[in-house]
Amino acid sequence: MFDRRDLRVNISRMKKNILDLASIGATPHGGVSRLALTNEDKIARQTLVSWMKETGLEVIVDQMGNMRGRHEGKNPSLPPIVIGSHIDTQPFGGKFDGAYGVLGALEVLRTIAENKTMTTRSIEIFAWTNEEGTRFQPAMMGSGVFAGIIDLQAAYKSEDKHGKRFGEELEGIGFKGEIVCQPRKLHAYLELHIEQGPILEKQHVQIGVVQGIVGIAWLMVTVKGEPNHSGSTPMDSRKDALVVAANAVRMVRNAPLKIKGLAATVGSFDVYPNSINIIPGKVVFTIDFRCFNDERLDDAITVAKEEIMSMATQEKCEASIELLERFHHVDFAKKTVRVVEKSASKLGLRYSPIISGAGHDAQCLNKICDTAMIFVPSRRGRSHCEDEDTDWEDLESGANVLLESTLTLANET
Amino acid sequence: MFDRRDLRVNISRMKKNILDLASIGATPHGGVSRLALTNEDKIARQTLVSWMKETGLEVIVDQMGNMRGRHEGKNPSLPPIVIGSHIDTQPFGGKFDGAYGVLGALEVLRTIAENKTMTTRSIEIFAWTNEEGTRFQPAMMGSGVFAGIIDLQAAYKSEDKHGKRFGEELEGIGFKGEIVCQPRKLHAYLELHIEQGPILEKQHVQIGVVQGIVGIAWLMVTVKGEPNHSGSTPMDSRKDALVVAANAVRMVRNAPLKIKGLAATVGSFDVYPNSINIIPGKVVFTIDFRCFNDERLDDAITVAKEEIMSMATQEKCEASIELLERFHHVDFAKKTVRVVEKSASKLGLRYSPIISGAGHDAQCLNKICDTAMIFVPSRRGRSHCEDEDTDWEDLESGANVLLESTLTLANET
Repeated sequence: MFDRRDLRVNISRMKKNILDLASIGATPHGGVSRLALTNEDKIARQTLVSWMKETGLEVIVDQMGNMRGRHEGKNPSLPPIVIGSHIDTQPFGGKFDGAYGVLGALEVLRTIAENKTMTTRSIEIFAWTNEEGTRFQPAMMGSGVFAGIIDLQAAYKSEDKHGKRFGEELEGIGFKGEIVCQPRKLHAYLELHIEQGPILEKQHVQIGVVQGIVGIAWLMVTVKGEPNHSGSTPMDSRKDALVVAANAVRMVRNAPLKIKGLAATVGSFDVYPNSINIIPGKVVFTIDFRCFNDERLDDAITVAKEEIMSMATQEKCEASIELLERFHHVDFAKKTVRVVEKSASKLGLRYSPIISGAGHDAQCLNKICDTAMIFVPSRRGRSHCEDEDTDWEDLESGANVLLESTLTLANET
Repeated sequence: MFDRRDLRVNISRMKKNILDLASIGATPHGGVSRLALTNEDKIARQTLVSWMKETGLEVIVDQMGNMRGRHEGKNPSLPPIVIGSHIDTQPFGGKFDGAYGVLGALEVLRTIAENKTMTTRSIEIFAWTNEEGTRFQPAMMGSGVFAGIIDLQAAYKSEDKHGKRFGEELEGIGFKGEIVCQPRKLHAYLELHIEQGPILEKQHVQIGVVQGIVGIAWLMVTVKGEPNHSGSTPMDSRKDALVVAANAVRMVRNAPLKIKGLAATVGSFDVYPNSINIIPGKVVFTIDFRCFNDERLDDAITVAKEEIMSMATQEKCEASIELLERFHHVDFAKKTVRVVEKSASKLGLRYSPIISGAGHDAQCLNKICDTAMIFVPSRRGRSHCEDEDTDWEDLESGANVLLESTLTLANET
């Protein structure tokens, strides 16, 4: 048996897995299109299951299609360590978002298995179903049901835009398992992921020790004015919904200047009737506010609502604002975060604390057990796009931090 | 023979025509959907031809499908007076835009005919093909070819969004005539139309004596930024195309504060990828500038280009600006405008000079003969929509001004 201090992942083996999985649903410009429960997802799932079995793991699939591989510990009755992420992607996503966390976990278990390293607790790898939420809403569905946040039957009824139901599509690809998907007692959950932002790269660090996940508020704003002829309607007789919405975009953009730590984005924006010579009569747009401080996030919502109503009145328009989603911020368990930090330190890596601005399966798991995440830098901060990229050396470092942290947690009694 | 001073249109007859024509392509909320060369247009055309024949007019159809009815004058060799407008509509247009000008002209000729009033010059009524330009571009196609501005073969090749060609569709509805469509010597052209704006209603006048048509510039602006994750991209690392475009909307809205007589509208506005949690990477929008003074209109274009480029640079985005259309302003013939004014005055109506902010067939006809237009108030300034409306009393007044002006011009030697 090797000394635990010598255990390191095999980067060429992990790289081969990552590139092989990325070939399933590969897009012309180096990305991946593998939406949940499509044929590409099915093939990727079958491939992953075969790899887990080759690693000697006992594989099961639960009612939500979450795939689990288990490495038995010395004391199988103790709650296990869970490591994992997801393998579904955005419509034009990258090779690493999700897949890295799953294949990094697989490499960790393969390294442990080939070295015949024994751990006190069992270690389970999970690939969660439909994290992206692109085809079926809500996002983080597999981990959400597993953590008791989302109702199984409600998840089954979710329909894609062609009216196909999640439950039937899951059965269709042969991944509607028998194992009950519900909260279990776990010792800890660790998720390895690319940062999806530019912070670590800018800081020239190799590892982001994630402290938690921001709170998120999604608002939908509808502004109604009057669609009139652009040529024959005097400037002072207009009720231009686009003028109101454009002012709101500026206000949203400037909100972080007043509210510390706020990220604020208008991402979706539709103008009606959208004709070159008609004054816009209606605009529907969304606001995405994120902050690690929920009180400040609520302040941002309040201020935005007030300012938009006042902007609408000024233009003789009407506005209505609907709260679509409100996730509270997540603090990861200090103890588990500390394990990650110590592992990075022990491996001699440059690391830094970071807050995740994106949602992850880890926020669901955090409801039922101690949780932490490990980030590696994203080149130019690009993600959810085909040119998402990370240096292989950084991917190797991240997997070694996951290996080290997993071993530490799996040997806790 | 009646004394010319006693001639008045028959409002109930004209009203019946207007409502009967509006029933062809009627929409649920009181509007009309009768796009050029559709089956509705065909039925409306057949109806109009039958009404023109009942009035005793000699009817011909030219190569562009323009329909002409002629009332012979005492001296048929003198260039005639032409009166008319169009019967095609917007997808959800109103009962009066275009149809009023044609049926008002028909009522004028019917009044002249039933009173056996003789005029020196012949009077022709024209219903021009495809004024709206909704299905086939460009707009004002029938009058454009007639005035030598648009090439006949180019018009025939224009395709709708389903790839159907104008020439074949015109033949398909049986209105591709044999008569050559080209410039002819005309004495004058008069067009009766609803205002499509709120000015006359606000001024409490019954008749707008149109002095000319504004110049128009259409710009298409493309702003390119970088589509990144809304949660993990710090505010200071963003290249948000929507922030630039929103600032441009404000700038366009405020441009008329600096440039007198300018109307400025952003009407079409598309955001990409248009997703709630992705920073917009691209926005494509249009600017519609109108001014009766072409020099000031050019100034507006120059300033907008400069400001947009600077706004883009500030956000580390790129912008490109394309000039889609540039129509110069049109001054109607003072002599003809004066005839309209005198007619309104003689009839004891409240009238006022007005500039048309919208394009009309009259601007094409102005290329080949003296031209003027008569406007009547639009309720609440609404047009290009189902609730477009005008009081019947105002419609009657407008038709009587057209009658009076036509008789004056037709008796000029």
